[in-house]
Amino acid sequence: MTKKKIEIAQMLNILLAVSLLLLILKFGKNPTNKMEQDTTNTLEIIHQRKSVRNFTPQEVKKEQLQTLIKAAMAAPTAVNKQPWAFIAIKDRDILDRLGEKLPYAKMLKKVNAAIVVCGDLNKTLEDWEQEFWIQDCSAASQNILLAAEAIGLGAVWTAAYPAKDRMQTVSEILGLPESIIPLNVIPVGYPKGVEKPKDKWKPENLHWEQW
Amino acid sequence: MTKKKIEIAQMLNILLAVSLLLLILKFGKNPTNKMEQDTTNTLEIIHQRKSVRNFTPQEVKKEQLQTLIKAAMAAPTAVNKQPWAFIAIKDRDILDRLGEKLPYAKMLKKVNAAIVVCGDLNKTLEDWEQEFWIQDCSAASQNILLAAEAIGLGAVWTAAYPAKDRMQTVSEILGLPESIIPLNVIPVGYPKGVEKPKDKWKPENLHWEQW
Repeated sequence: MTKKKIEIAQMLNILLAVSLLLLILKFGKNPTNKMEQDTTNTLEIIHQRKSVRNFTPQEVKKEQLQTLIKAAMAAPTAVNKQPWAFIAIKDRDILDRLGEKLPYAKMLKKVNAAIVVCGDLNKTLEDWEQEFWIQDCSAASQNILLAAEAIGLGAVWTAAYPAKDRMQTVSEILGLPESIIPLNVIPVGYPKGVEKPKDKWKPENLHWEQW
Repeated sequence: MTKKKIEIAQMLNILLAVSLLLLILKFGKNPTNKMEQDTTNTLEIIHQRKSVRNFTPQEVKKEQLQTLIKAAMAAPTAVNKQPWAFIAIKDRDILDRLGEKLPYAKMLKKVNAAIVVCGDLNKTLEDWEQEFWIQDCSAASQNILLAAEAIGLGAVWTAAYPAKDRMQTVSEILGLPESIIPLNVIPVGYPKGVEKPKDKWKPENLHWEQW
C-alpha cells in the first residue's frame, strides 16, 4: 500500500466520523422521548380522534388522567382567566352512580376512569362576559380528547351543561359547590377498536373572503 | 506505518460505514412525510400553542387555511349536527376593515389571513339544546389553533360572540345571514417569535374523585 493510499484511507475515516457526528447531533434528540407513548403527529391525531364508547377492562392510571388534564389546562381562556376545575374519577362506585343516572353516559358503568370538566364562576369575567367559561372549558375539553387519542386512550364528550337535570345529577354525586358548573362528563379508557373516525369535511361549510 | 495499523484503520472504516448506514436507516424515514410540515407530536403541540399576535409578512397560502379548517371540521359536535360554517379571509381590504372596527383584533391589519368560526343556527339542535353550537364551534376553534401551531403558523382566538357589537361588525363586513353567528375571528400568520407558551398547570384545579 502506498503512502498516498494510506492518506486517502485516513481522510475517509475523518469524513465518516464527522458525518456520523452530524447525524447523531441532528437526530439523536429523539422527540418521542419527551412525551412518553406519544409517537404520532398533531394533524393525524386531530383526524383520527373519534368518540369512543366501548372500552376494554385495562386500567387507566392516575398519571394518564393527569397528562390529559395538564393538556386541558394548556387551552387558551378569555383574558387568561382559566375559569375551570377538573374532577378526575377512578372510584368504581362514583362512576357507577354517574352512569346509572346520566342517560347519555351509560358507558361509565363499563369504563374505569372519567374526567368532569367544570366552569368555576368565581374565576370568570363579569356580567355578560361570564359565559366565556363555556368556550374556554370547551377548548380545554377538546385538548383532553386529543391528548387521550395521542396516548392511545379513547374518550367521549357527554354533555352536562346546559341540561339542568344532568348538571344537578353530576353536582350531587360529586359534591360540587354552587359556583362549580359541570360542562361535561368524559369517560376515558382503552378503546375496544369499534369506533372509527368520521369524515366530516364538507367544502360547502368553507366560504372564501365573505359569505 | 505497520501493516497492523493499516488493518486497524480499514476495520475502523468499515465500522464507521456500518454505523452510518444504521443511523440513516433508523432516522431516514422521516415521519413528517405523512403530513407535510408537521414534525411534532400532539402533546408537545398542545403545550407549545400560544396566542400569537405578532406576525411576519410571509404569506399564508389558501391550502394552509384549508388544512386548518379541515382540522376544525374534525371536532366532535353534539348529536353530530356539525352546526358550523367557516369563513377564510385573505383579502387585504376585508382584513383591514375588520381590524379597524374590532377592538381586540387590531393585529388583523398586520396579518395576511384570518378564519372566522361561525355557528349555523339552521343546523343546530332545537330549543334549549340550540346553544350546543357554542361548545361545538369552540372545540373546532381549538383544533384550528393546534393545527396552526403544528404546521408552523401562529394564531389567536379573538372573541366575537357573545359581544353584540363585535358580532354586528363581523356580520356586516362579511355579509353573514341572520342565522350565521360569528363565534370568533382568528388571525393566522407566521409568528415573529415574540410570544411564548404560558404554563397554566395548577394542581389545585385538579380534584380527585369528588370536590
